[in-house]
Amino acid sequence: MNINEIVKEANRAKIKLMGLNTEIKNKALDAVAKNIELNKEKIYEANKKDLEYAQTLVDTGKITKATYGRLKLDENKMRDMIQGIYDVIKLEDPVNKTLFVRELDEELILKKITTPIGVLGIIFEARPDVISQISSLAIKSGNAVILKGGSEANNTNRAIFEIITEALNNTEGFPKSAVNLVFSHDDIKEMLSKDGYIDLIIPRGSNKLVRFIQENTKIPVLGHASGICHIFVDETADFNMAKKICIDAKTQYPTACNAVETILIHKNFPYTAELKEALIEAGIEVIENPEEFGVEYSDTVLNIKTVNSLDEAIEHINTFGSHHTDSIITSNNENAEIFMNNVDSAGVFKNASTRFSDGFRYGFGAEVGISTNKTHARGPVGLDGLCIYKYKLEGKGQTVAEYAKGEKTFKHKDIV
Amino acid sequence: MNINEIVKEANRAKIKLMGLNTEIKNKALDAVAKNIELNKEKIYEANKKDLEYAQTLVDTGKITKATYGRLKLDENKMRDMIQGIYDVIKLEDPVNKTLFVRELDEELILKKITTPIGVLGIIFEARPDVISQISSLAIKSGNAVILKGGSEANNTNRAIFEIITEALNNTEGFPKSAVNLVFSHDDIKEMLSKDGYIDLIIPRGSNKLVRFIQENTKIPVLGHASGICHIFVDETADFNMAKKICIDAKTQYPTACNAVETILIHKNFPYTAELKEALIEAGIEVIENPEEFGVEYSDTVLNIKTVNSLDEAIEHINTFGSHHTDSIITSNNENAEIFMNNVDSAGVFKNASTRFSDGFRYGFGAEVGISTNKTHARGPVGLDGLCIYKYKLEGKGQTVAEYAKGEKTFKHKDIV
Repeated sequence: MNINEIVKEANRAKIKLMGLNTEIKNKALDAVAKNIELNKEKIYEANKKDLEYAQTLVDTGKITKATYGRLKLDENKMRDMIQGIYDVIKLEDPVNKTLFVRELDEELILKKITTPIGVLGIIFEARPDVISQISSLAIKSGNAVILKGGSEANNTNRAIFEIITEALNNTEGFPKSAVNLVFSHDDIKEMLSKDGYIDLIIPRGSNKLVRFIQENTKIPVLGHASGICHIFVDETADFNMAKKICIDAKTQYPTACNAVETILIHKNFPYTAELKEALIEAGIEVIENPEEFGVEYSDTVLNIKTVNSLDEAIEHINTFGSHHTDSIITSNNENAEIFMNNVDSAGVFKNASTRFSDGFRYGFGAEVGISTNKTHARGPVGLDGLCIYKYKLEGKGQTVAEYAKGEKTFKHKDIV
Repeated sequence: MNINEIVKEANRAKIKLMGLNTEIKNKALDAVAKNIELNKEKIYEANKKDLEYAQTLVDTGKITKATYGRLKLDENKMRDMIQGIYDVIKLEDPVNKTLFVRELDEELILKKITTPIGVLGIIFEARPDVISQISSLAIKSGNAVILKGGSEANNTNRAIFEIITEALNNTEGFPKSAVNLVFSHDDIKEMLSKDGYIDLIIPRGSNKLVRFIQENTKIPVLGHASGICHIFVDETADFNMAKKICIDAKTQYPTACNAVETILIHKNFPYTAELKEALIEAGIEVIENPEEFGVEYSDTVLNIKTVNSLDEAIEHINTFGSHHTDSIITSNNENAEIFMNNVDSAGVFKNASTRFSDGFRYGFGAEVGISTNKTHARGPVGLDGLCIYKYKLEGKGQTVAEYAKGEKTFKHKDIV
């Protein structure tokens, strides 16, 4: 099938997925998990092929060792992949939840009900485990999905996709073409042009990939291009707390999007020298370079700036940050409140590491991604972010004319 | 100020608006309403100038009589405009609402709190009363706004804008540059290119305007380009109910986006001939033209199609509709449920007129617009649609390393 046919089929599947009950969706997920377990060896074999070719790319400097590492499916990743599906089964079904029930008038009942969004487009790089993760989230939330992986992982992707498809096709009542995989690089361009047929694009990969996608589609994109996170060490910050949080936010996982990049220190904070020393001791390269505000180091490098006031810190963050996650270390509750209200970021923290900004740590059970968008979903996005709602109105033959003429009047009484 | 400076100023105002309490916002709205009342004559005078010029455009066929009508501000419109502001004052503040409070762990509390979106861009045609309506919704929801009206209404727009600005500038604690108006046609293009600085575009005007905007920006657009609404008259529909609802949905306000365009009649419905007759008697031009599925007549014209089944009706609607509002007339509850689940529209109705799809009728108190988007907001959008949320996390120095190492474990206990 070409991409146009796949998009058409996915849009057909979408309608059937909308009405699926939780039981069938969970049965499908269980079948997928079991089929992956049963066919592990096939996946390893396919992965071996990809790795052999990838090794030649590493040797010729065309891909990095890190990309090779992300491509490799070892036993741990396989176990996590399978466990991840069982975890999604346990999550609450986000679809068909009643957001409100309102009596507009006698026997004229309005319900606001959550529904799947429709068709998701997922564009990801090297990591083939993304297929099973995103497919299971899509299935649970009743969305059809079109996946495009990196060509380095084509064999692995195809193997996992075929195993998923087999399991879904064997699940009674589960629609065909709910999960789709495309292979050609041209398909990315095609996918990005399908507004109205693909409802949401989720990129999983480098900042460059995300930015490319954001700049080349009219379809809403859920994600973040960069994670420029800040910590503001206020005048009254506890030294040990500041030290502990700054080190955690930079070193616990330096390449994470929620790792800190710039630390702003209040000019009256008494332990600036000691703090810098402690950071250096922790293996962090400390620089003070105003040219690099807004740089995401993705490494144990930290930029430091001294600020004259809370306001300057807030303005700096709103100017140079990526509206992801920013934290204040302070003993002054009023300052904390001003900071948390006026920093325009998805996560605004007080006396906690920016690294807490994460779907699992927030207790969402699963994470679709972290969004710095200002509409739909912001911050770590769980299954809810793959849903929207519709309004169901049940009447007994009412017309608007009766209300316009004043023969009837609305009650607008909330029932739920 | 040029558009770049205005965008910059609006982004400054945005930060201050975020933290404003309800009292100051309501005071500002009250001042605006009172200042409009006080300066009615100025507005009428400005409107007179616009009308004089518009008359020459009508005479030379450059604008329609309908456009002239929308441009004209009479006493009724003025009264509604002022009353509209007082109505917004009475609405609940959509900002700073707690969506949940979760104890991630001891003294590590996560709150999900509603916030304004940021900066709204409003592009509207002829109707100058949009300025006060949208400005008051923006103020109440704590958003900065940049408005661009049609040039036919430049004098009226400027007069209303200046009166609003004066009132806002005299309200203590209300930030400057929260409400902005731009005039040049080039400013539209500029506004549409400001992704990252304008967070949401709301077009108010013709389908053509909406489509142009959707096709020329990467900023999320809230609205609908067309309203292709359907009624499916099922086999078991009550004849009188079908007649009453179809006539209401077509004639009560034929140019409305939620007016019906195509009626699908089940082949076994026994009163098809009588229904057509009744529609014609009600002044409706009934046609049966398969070439015009998906046409929005904006007039008392109805297209009719006989369908073989509920499934065919659903597939027709999902194919030719605009995902706005569609209704089934039936005595069969099971069919109603299938219809409401499988029709992929913002509003799915049973035994009620499509004309009910409206923010005021739904009880939202105000309507920003009706959205056929699949993300953020769908259907009639109230003040909530101008908000998003942020996550506030308050800790006592916790680091992620402690949890990663297993020294601490998350509780994830919902408090609110």
